Amino acid sequence: MTPTITAFEKSPDRGKGLARDMRVRWALEEVGQPYDVRLVSFETMKKPAHLALQPFGQIPTYEEGGLVLFESGGIILHIAEHHAGLLPDDANGRARAIAWMFAALSTMEPPIVEHGMSLLFERDKSWYEQRQPMLEDRVRKRLAALSNRLDDADWLDGAFSAGDLMMVSVLQRLRSSGLVNDYPNLAAYVARAEARPAYQRAFAAQLAVFTGKQ
Amino acid sequence: MTPTITAFEKSPDRGKGLARDMRVRWALEEVGQPYDVRLVSFETMKKPAHLALQPFGQIPTYEEGGLVLFESGGIILHIAEHHAGLLPDDANGRARAIAWMFAALSTMEPPIVEHGMSLLFERDKSWYEQRQPMLEDRVRKRLAALSNRLDDADWLDGAFSAGDLMMVSVLQRLRSSGLVNDYPNLAAYVARAEARPAYQRAFAAQLAVFTGKQ
Repeated sequence: MTPTITAFEKSPDRGKGLARDMRVRWALEEVGQPYDVRLVSFETMKKPAHLALQPFGQIPTYEEGGLVLFESGGIILHIAEHHAGLLPDDANGRARAIAWMFAALSTMEPPIVEHGMSLLFERDKSWYEQRQPMLEDRVRKRLAALSNRLDDADWLDGAFSAGDLMMVSVLQRLRSSGLVNDYPNLAAYVARAEARPAYQRAFAAQLAVFTGKQ
Repeated sequence: MTPTITAFEKSPDRGKGLARDMRVRWALEEVGQPYDVRLVSFETMKKPAHLALQPFGQIPTYEEGGLVLFESGGIILHIAEHHAGLLPDDANGRARAIAWMFAALSTMEPPIVEHGMSLLFERDKSWYEQRQPMLEDRVRKRLAALSNRLDDADWLDGAFSAGDLMMVSVLQRLRSSGLVNDYPNLAAYVARAEARPAYQRAFAAQLAVFTGKQ
């Protein structure tokens, strides 16, 4: 059964691939699962029909037969559990890969989003110049810890996994800040992931929504 | 095999149960799995021996034979997958319960932590009075959406699950702000969870570390 995901009708980042449907597209491409996309507007996202699928009025959602899921983490773990390619076969490696998914979303992403939100919405405020170094410092602490752990490995724990997919998706949100470039092994890690054919296909598919050239 | 978790030697909240080992203790109590605790200081948490277990220098960690895990989400999902009591038996319900775990950590917790961090660390700043209503508004948006979804149900999706355990643990971080009390069904939801015998045992165990009366 072909699953259906939701994505923004109008890309807020003009096709840069930072909306959270990109993570799900990437996971589906990694496991070779075709999918349908239903585009939603900022208006329809807040209406009862969409809220029934996604209580917080966000994208992406995932529908597959009688199953409705939301949260990119929950969707990607579901995909990873039902297809080969995103989780190791051995039980301990599998548990560690899932822990890295949580680390990406729960430890890395919050300070990165906070730093980005301030950049977007508080740049004209009197306190911006004083607060931004503190926010940047919080991000750098996480990047330094991640860089130390990754060391010279290709991926966080053995082969590429859903943990890497999620971690790279989170690190990409720092692109405009250039912060990742101060940690060469993390910059190489992101580039390594973006070179994967599955990533390239997913990126092209979400870009096509923006350019209208499907 | 009895797992070992790590927790703070000195409770930063003086036994209120907001440190993230509490979530793992609660999960272990729900499934009836005894566990050992190794207490760590703020100093030893940043040393190589602990960083080898937890790359970001935090608690909790989880050791079970050859398996080392970190991130409360990853640990609790591992516990839920290996014991009955925290995930439904049917595949779709299981996927939805896991999605709620991610929703708690990735959608609800970040604005709640940001609101709390500002309260703790920026109260004396010139911008506090202007920024705090914005942070509170972000938290309220999430609480309102969650309250609408929960409606008059006891739990988020059928029986109590790891998704509820994580969601309640996140909502508890708002206690001192009183914000949850504006959503009576959410306040009742938190109280319902805290009345569970497993929660009570876990709370008592973490409090005993603080009082020294084990």
